[in-house]
Amino acid sequence: MTAGGRAGRQPGRFITIEGGEGAGKSTQIALLVARLEAGGKTVRRTREPGGSPGAEAIRNLVVTGAGDRWDGVTEALLMFAARRDHLRATVWPALERGEWVVSDRFADSSMAYQGYARGIGPGKIAELYAWTLGDFRPDLTLILDLPVEIGLARARARAGDEQRFEGLDLDFHRRLSAGFHAIAAAEPDRCRLVDGSGDIDGTAALIWAAVAERFDLGR
Amino acid sequence: MTAGGRAGRQPGRFITIEGGEGAGKSTQIALLVARLEAGGKTVRRTREPGGSPGAEAIRNLVVTGAGDRWDGVTEALLMFAARRDHLRATVWPALERGEWVVSDRFADSSMAYQGYARGIGPGKIAELYAWTLGDFRPDLTLILDLPVEIGLARARARAGDEQRFEGLDLDFHRRLSAGFHAIAAAEPDRCRLVDGSGDIDGTAALIWAAVAERFDLGR
Repeated sequence: MTAGGRAGRQPGRFITIEGGEGAGKSTQIALLVARLEAGGKTVRRTREPGGSPGAEAIRNLVVTGAGDRWDGVTEALLMFAARRDHLRATVWPALERGEWVVSDRFADSSMAYQGYARGIGPGKIAELYAWTLGDFRPDLTLILDLPVEIGLARARARAGDEQRFEGLDLDFHRRLSAGFHAIAAAEPDRCRLVDGSGDIDGTAALIWAAVAERFDLGR
Repeated sequence: MTAGGRAGRQPGRFITIEGGEGAGKSTQIALLVARLEAGGKTVRRTREPGGSPGAEAIRNLVVTGAGDRWDGVTEALLMFAARRDHLRATVWPALERGEWVVSDRFADSSMAYQGYARGIGPGKIAELYAWTLGDFRPDLTLILDLPVEIGLARARARAGDEQRFEGLDLDFHRRLSAGFHAIAAAEPDRCRLVDGSGDIDGTAALIWAAVAERFDLGR
């Protein structure tokens, strides 16, 4: 498919955090952002689906309603529409200003959720990625990994209205976890699998080690 | 790209009506539906973007707001997400029941608006079509054709909030018209270009002649 992305190399850095439900992404992102800022970086924290006014409007369509409101193909199209808007309105301008952008989820979530767990297939999601974004890629992707049962128990302990994915069955979440492992194995230069089963400080230390190594930052 | 459509041949018939602004689609669709029903057909009238609850929600995102709210790539993804939902929820079930489905716009509008007029390119829209719908196609597409200036003057005489496309410039609408001509030339078996510059009854007669010929109906 032809490239739908953007040419050239931005001066900023783009870090994405991925993982299943209850992996502790929000807490770890807050800690990572604080540490980068303490090191003098200008950091833009964002999330998917969402992260721009247009993408947040699309998010509202995707994360509410019954689990079968959209089929997997439609859901993937909506996710990539939101992603394109998020990049165009939020991420790319920040990278061009030289900022560090940290996103709670990005395209690997589409790959894991729709490509692997919903059965559309990783090749088909890769085609849609190329159609929408060309060869644009994050500089580093941290995949928080922990046993499915522990993650779901953590997620269910939270309150919230956005229960659509949490409500899906255990087999779904097992396919999701296997998908994230496959992504990490397929792109080892970009992706780091981080053990998220320990306590908050321990996981934060693992994440910081990966970030510092990738970008040659002082510990 | 792999097929995202559906296998097999439905017993119903799927007719789509295309054209630029002010081509008279709504009036002509009402007349066509009435004539098919008078001939004993069960007819489902629908429209794009929209035609199902999910697709209408996506439509609200696409047809409102500023002309540059979405870039062409994002807009195309939203349109195909809405289209997939429309087919899955409305069109395919009706065709399986043996009904005749008449849609005010379908994928050729994405080809003309995003592919030709917004400059994404027809090849790229064809890729997204194949990704989303495989080889599913309408049985007949009627493209209402009239000079751009006349169509825009008619469209502007109407009231309405959905002014996003009408507000774009004359060059845009010229590219749109050229796109519809290219589509008709590329798929002559499926598409019929119908002169929409005459009066209502004259255009209705041209449309009925095309439908009767295609489906071997009595005049």
